[in-house]
Amino acid sequence: MMHPEFSSADAHRAWLAAQSALPQGFRVGTTRLNFVPVEVHKPSAMTLTLLTLDEPTDAFAAVFTRNAFPGAPVIVGRRRLDEPTLGAILVNNKVSNVCAPGGVEASERLCEALATELGLDARQVLPCSTGVIGWRLPVDAMLTALPALKASLQGDSVMPAAEGIVTTDLYPKVRSAAVGAGRIVGIAKGAGMIEPNLATMLVYLLTDCDVPREALREALRDAVDATFNAMSIDSDTSTSDTVALVSSKKVPCELSAFREALTQVCAALTEDVVRNGEGVHHVIRVTVKGAPDRALALGVGKSVVNSPLLQCAICGNDPNVGRLVMAIGKHVGAARPDLDLSRCAIAMAGREIFRDGAFRLDPETETALVAHMKSAELYASVAPPDGVTFKPPVRHPPHGRRVEIEVDLGLGDAKATVLGGDRTHEYISENADYRT
Amino acid sequence: MMHPEFSSADAHRAWLAAQSALPQGFRVGTTRLNFVPVEVHKPSAMTLTLLTLDEPTDAFAAVFTRNAFPGAPVIVGRRRLDEPTLGAILVNNKVSNVCAPGGVEASERLCEALATELGLDARQVLPCSTGVIGWRLPVDAMLTALPALKASLQGDSVMPAAEGIVTTDLYPKVRSAAVGAGRIVGIAKGAGMIEPNLATMLVYLLTDCDVPREALREALRDAVDATFNAMSIDSDTSTSDTVALVSSKKVPCELSAFREALTQVCAALTEDVVRNGEGVHHVIRVTVKGAPDRALALGVGKSVVNSPLLQCAICGNDPNVGRLVMAIGKHVGAARPDLDLSRCAIAMAGREIFRDGAFRLDPETETALVAHMKSAELYASVAPPDGVTFKPPVRHPPHGRRVEIEVDLGLGDAKATVLGGDRTHEYISENADYRT
Repeated sequence: MMHPEFSSADAHRAWLAAQSALPQGFRVGTTRLNFVPVEVHKPSAMTLTLLTLDEPTDAFAAVFTRNAFPGAPVIVGRRRLDEPTLGAILVNNKVSNVCAPGGVEASERLCEALATELGLDARQVLPCSTGVIGWRLPVDAMLTALPALKASLQGDSVMPAAEGIVTTDLYPKVRSAAVGAGRIVGIAKGAGMIEPNLATMLVYLLTDCDVPREALREALRDAVDATFNAMSIDSDTSTSDTVALVSSKKVPCELSAFREALTQVCAALTEDVVRNGEGVHHVIRVTVKGAPDRALALGVGKSVVNSPLLQCAICGNDPNVGRLVMAIGKHVGAARPDLDLSRCAIAMAGREIFRDGAFRLDPETETALVAHMKSAELYASVAPPDGVTFKPPVRHPPHGRRVEIEVDLGLGDAKATVLGGDRTHEYISENADYRT
Repeated sequence: MMHPEFSSADAHRAWLAAQSALPQGFRVGTTRLNFVPVEVHKPSAMTLTLLTLDEPTDAFAAVFTRNAFPGAPVIVGRRRLDEPTLGAILVNNKVSNVCAPGGVEASERLCEALATELGLDARQVLPCSTGVIGWRLPVDAMLTALPALKASLQGDSVMPAAEGIVTTDLYPKVRSAAVGAGRIVGIAKGAGMIEPNLATMLVYLLTDCDVPREALREALRDAVDATFNAMSIDSDTSTSDTVALVSSKKVPCELSAFREALTQVCAALTEDVVRNGEGVHHVIRVTVKGAPDRALALGVGKSVVNSPLLQCAICGNDPNVGRLVMAIGKHVGAARPDLDLSRCAIAMAGREIFRDGAFRLDPETETALVAHMKSAELYASVAPPDGVTFKPPVRHPPHGRRVEIEVDLGLGDAKATVLGGDRTHEYISENADYRT
């Protein structure tokens, strides 16, 4: 499900809209509100997004961050998994409600008020928040906005929700797939603090395919492991990550076809999140094979995409393949110092560059690798007016190409494919003063 | 051994020179040579540095990188530890001789030629290389330069060696300490690919203190664990890292005093390396206490200094303390998900900002934290003439201040102190095209 080339944000938007039809039984809406954080006393704004089911369902699943300081909504969300049914998901951006005084109570208060508004029980509402850590939710302002939020609900398109949940994302992310007469539609928010297990990533997968609760939960775990858990923007693990999958059970379906379609949608959203990663100029795909087990394959792949030095080299279209070998050896030396890498082979752009413990480099290979990296570049840095605050010159993904790296460890049959991005001036500028 | 404020590179240099006197029994020299790498066909240059003992010694020690792709000099160096004596260390920059065809043979050939020149055996020469990975050493050009290198030897100052071993370092690094009538003088090269275990870090510690071989080796292991292995610039582990300690055994000494002085010199050089880290605007010191074991304390400290998001926030003098909590929870959630962080307390600039699972933030605290970060800033980014290639505006460390973070996990008695730096435009620019 790689996406085509887009010449403009409008063209990309039209392509997103074409796959945004909601499955049967769902409605979504958004509203915007202003508030002043008590922590900094500067005017701010947030968007509330609501996803509802026409009838509460027992077929819902969610996986959450493994960060040891989970946000209050994650604490509440874990409890919701034990409830018999789910009727709505409430999402806010701008304030993550992590480690803020009274955070759990604030989330529960919002769930109660929304439940009253919708004729549900509070325990049928899943709350989600993303944004600045440590700030308190502006609960009163949010409560005031709930009637407008309810009034905005519509059953045609998921696009308003895809746009409502974003923070520093350059563009909304929507993917869908047909499963027989049913559908899966997924949206994702995420651009930084992204090394899933999970990331500051919020993903909502809506389906009308009738899959029983336990099968749905197993399908989600497996799909997330193969996709969202095999990418990294910056190795940072958010305190708020949530992937939720909800079925309205309107359309009979075949489980294996559903599982396959779900993994496809998750894989496509994973790549969308990386391509929209903060400051990402190049999507990097590392395929690791010949590993003794999947954990090592995944670890090597993540070490490669998380190496700051390799990330910078790729930003500069500089085939500094020495840093690639460094990143592989760094992980293996730390995780499995007993292993012998003498049979390791490495290819870049489909061209073998390393075998038998030594590089095979010459000026012609160097030229070919530079060309490969340039063709995968999404944009180049543009000198900013103030000299230091870089902004991406595009607000859409221009193409679907990647920097392709293949590593064969020569030690077994396990493999993993990991996605990541390069490190650029735009990432620094985005994150050196995110909150203002 | 924090250093004072320096108003200029000359003032810093004078301060370095004042502590550069060689211990008894050593001589050092350098020479420069031009060559054309076969891999890229562009003119290049390297510096050769030579450290010799007047008499070969059995009292020498070294620790090397744990990267699973060690450079050829590291492979040779490990063998040298089994030899009865050492007489010289030969260092080159620009080409690291890692994973290059015939790398071990190239290193051995240089050792043989240098040994002949100096009246030693090749097995008495420790070779070290740092620079681009994958390139071949220009052996013929290096052999031709050996007579000039020998002719440059002098016994007064270690400064020529401190200057000869650098690559992207902004300035040379020298530290020394007296031990009774004897001395330890240390020099360090290192600025990027720095997360020791070890880093692209070369450190040479020369002493005339008479410490037996085994005691010397134990002292070095302990000092390195407490210092160089508790810092990170970019989490990347070089393939070439080497810390060598050599004694000429000229002066009797007391072992415990020696061990203490050695740790002091290593700690000071560690901080110098971080302060000179590529693009570092702020040195960050994280003190972790209350850990169940030192490994977790060290892991939490490294997770904090290696968090790209926190690094960017500190670059921007932005007290985004949420990212601090994220980085702590990320490590604990991955390494020890069984642990409960509800008793964790965090201070920044000596001010408590987090306790009982929640932040204590207000505008006055925010202002104080911003002031603390600004006072620790080494320099701010200066808009570059071409718009994208940032260069540090100073070539000396203006002061010795740090951003101070204290974490009490509330779970035990173990602790660790970790040093790191922020992530800036200068790091990106330095590494987006290092080789040209």
